[in-house]
Amino acid sequence: MAVGLTGQLPVMHAVDGIRLSATSAGIKVSGRRDLVLIEICEQASTAAVFTRNAFCAAPVILSRRHLMQQAPRYLLINSGNANAGTGEQGVRDAYTCCEAMAVSTGCAVEEVLPFSTGVIGEPLPVNVIQKGLKNAIDRLSPDGWSDAAYGIMTTDTVPKGVSRQIKIHDETVTITGISKGSGMICPNMATMLAYITTNARIEQSVLQRCLEHAVAASFNSITVDGDTSTNDACVLIATGKTLLPYLQEGSDAFAQLRDAITDVCIELAQAIVRDGEGATKFITVDVLQGAHDEESRQVAYAIAHSPLVKTAFFASDPNWGRILAAVGRAGVSNLDVSKISIYLDEACIVWEGQRCKEYQEQQGVKVMKRDQITIRVMLGRGTHNARVWTCDFSYDYVRINAEYRS
Amino acid sequence: MAVGLTGQLPVMHAVDGIRLSATSAGIKVSGRRDLVLIEICEQASTAAVFTRNAFCAAPVILSRRHLMQQAPRYLLINSGNANAGTGEQGVRDAYTCCEAMAVSTGCAVEEVLPFSTGVIGEPLPVNVIQKGLKNAIDRLSPDGWSDAAYGIMTTDTVPKGVSRQIKIHDETVTITGISKGSGMICPNMATMLAYITTNARIEQSVLQRCLEHAVAASFNSITVDGDTSTNDACVLIATGKTLLPYLQEGSDAFAQLRDAITDVCIELAQAIVRDGEGATKFITVDVLQGAHDEESRQVAYAIAHSPLVKTAFFASDPNWGRILAAVGRAGVSNLDVSKISIYLDEACIVWEGQRCKEYQEQQGVKVMKRDQITIRVMLGRGTHNARVWTCDFSYDYVRINAEYRS
Repeated sequence: MAVGLTGQLPVMHAVDGIRLSATSAGIKVSGRRDLVLIEICEQASTAAVFTRNAFCAAPVILSRRHLMQQAPRYLLINSGNANAGTGEQGVRDAYTCCEAMAVSTGCAVEEVLPFSTGVIGEPLPVNVIQKGLKNAIDRLSPDGWSDAAYGIMTTDTVPKGVSRQIKIHDETVTITGISKGSGMICPNMATMLAYITTNARIEQSVLQRCLEHAVAASFNSITVDGDTSTNDACVLIATGKTLLPYLQEGSDAFAQLRDAITDVCIELAQAIVRDGEGATKFITVDVLQGAHDEESRQVAYAIAHSPLVKTAFFASDPNWGRILAAVGRAGVSNLDVSKISIYLDEACIVWEGQRCKEYQEQQGVKVMKRDQITIRVMLGRGTHNARVWTCDFSYDYVRINAEYRS
Repeated sequence: MAVGLTGQLPVMHAVDGIRLSATSAGIKVSGRRDLVLIEICEQASTAAVFTRNAFCAAPVILSRRHLMQQAPRYLLINSGNANAGTGEQGVRDAYTCCEAMAVSTGCAVEEVLPFSTGVIGEPLPVNVIQKGLKNAIDRLSPDGWSDAAYGIMTTDTVPKGVSRQIKIHDETVTITGISKGSGMICPNMATMLAYITTNARIEQSVLQRCLEHAVAASFNSITVDGDTSTNDACVLIATGKTLLPYLQEGSDAFAQLRDAITDVCIELAQAIVRDGEGATKFITVDVLQGAHDEESRQVAYAIAHSPLVKTAFFASDPNWGRILAAVGRAGVSNLDVSKISIYLDEACIVWEGQRCKEYQEQQGVKVMKRDQITIRVMLGRGTHNARVWTCDFSYDYVRINAEYRS
């Protein structure tokens, strides 16, 4: 079971202007839900970020293309097949599915954005998806959030959803989102799949910047295994169904909304790490006092990706030499190790580059027994910080990834 | 058991001018051999490369310093304690051990190079080492190679040694070396620990370049877990005990020797990967047709470090989508995926960026059952190649690293 998650979704507030469904089209052999449809009202703004993996999946190529042409009315999401490594045929297949949606609903084909997640390299079962569309459209409902959170899962053990309401000028603004992901998680400008919506009214280019801000602090700050997926995508939709006017950048109201959206993204991103394949511990890596943001991130990721650090956490072994070695190999130039200190939660383990004189092994043992732990590294070089969330590496990580597909 | 290694060392030819011993001083609680001494004759040349980890261990700091002052007469190596993360005290401790050696043998303290490998962050047991020196010196023998190979082991399951003899101008030139390493393996300009010796006569600066050439093609082209150690060191000694004159760079004789030394280094480096923690498969990653060496290495390491690729190999699952995803996230700019092809041994799995039309799953299954497999990636961008050796990621990797220290 995922670290610190119960498997119960919170109350998922409907967002005016959004309807969803999740049905079993038959893509997954298990018969679980595998086709999710999100309908967006007219006049909404939609922003999106996608994977930077050069081998990006066919639906990513097509969604990017469609987004440049029209504001989307439908997000067509399938789980169980990634439609990646499928070349031009994959793009044609994704287009055929969008076309079927356009015919069934009367929208333009460019108003449909396709998304896929699952095994890489298998042809998309286009017929199965086409046959499932009618049922998916019939079942669209404003209350489909929980179903949708289940429908986008692959190796996830729990559904992931967050819903918030804030007051802006006495209007209730709702932010509701879902995400999926558990392995192949090291998003680069996006995450596996996440869909966040709000009823606020925001102009598209402003919404895009708002999303990029939120993603930098959330989905782009997590890693399970260092492997950036071919299918990462994160979509933020503002339906504009409140009575509020367009929110302007620089206003307090905008800042309030942006912070709330960022919080929702952080919680969804953390949920992915908590449900990281085989995870038994949720680890926050804080690197402080870097000379610039980039070097702090570099050190944070060197720690978060180290298999030796991750297996030590799994074993609850305060083998801090592995953290120190990861800091040392992170590639920071002219690193003066005598200025570095390292903490495990409240326990100072390294002070001025060496084992802290007051440190006792039992302090480390006590911290390591917890299932949520913060590693804090102070570089003593400047004022730039970075925070990355990750999980440990367990037998189950190997089992899950050795058994996947079989 | 390590992949493709029997645990039997080959015949280890003595190298005139070198004597070795390996004794149990009591650093390892197991009582196994933990103190190795290598004596070098006068007039020999010694070259060395060390870890680039900023948190380099105290013995690395001191060995670098001593090497700049005098040609070494003794290498004093302990296993069971890395003397890393021990700050100034660690350097003083290493110095004290060198001093004791100088007193016992009559050499200068700068003529002793210290090396340590084992757990990071524990104080070096200086007294234990000092007490063990007499026994270590008494047991020095030209035939101590096999003992020494055992004495430097930590989590290694098998000793690693290679010995070759070649003829240069009718003189027999011997090259004999040992290495150790199994985890925290991603050498950066060096390896865990390796000692290679020859009776040829080579001037020190020429020997240094010869070592750097050999290391680039061997120890710097392997990875087990991507974690560069704090204690990596590789030493090459030329005793000059043959009747040959100094070998000059550019000569055929020099080229012959350099190739032989490189071969020995490659075999020692491969032995580390074959004995990688929990390894069940030995994997060669060949990346061809890069625009420059660096990007080919980048792609090779992205594949070799991917936990998803490594667990798929452990499971003998031809889940090639993971290889493709790793290539895509390696950070090569303007990568045209439609020019890329990928092979698993003889099976072409990706052609022009997508699943090869002729590829059948059973071809992949057949290859994956082997315990030695080559991944070949053709980038279609130029003529620069890179080769990296790695191993798979198994339950035993997690077990070994979760149980280490406990």
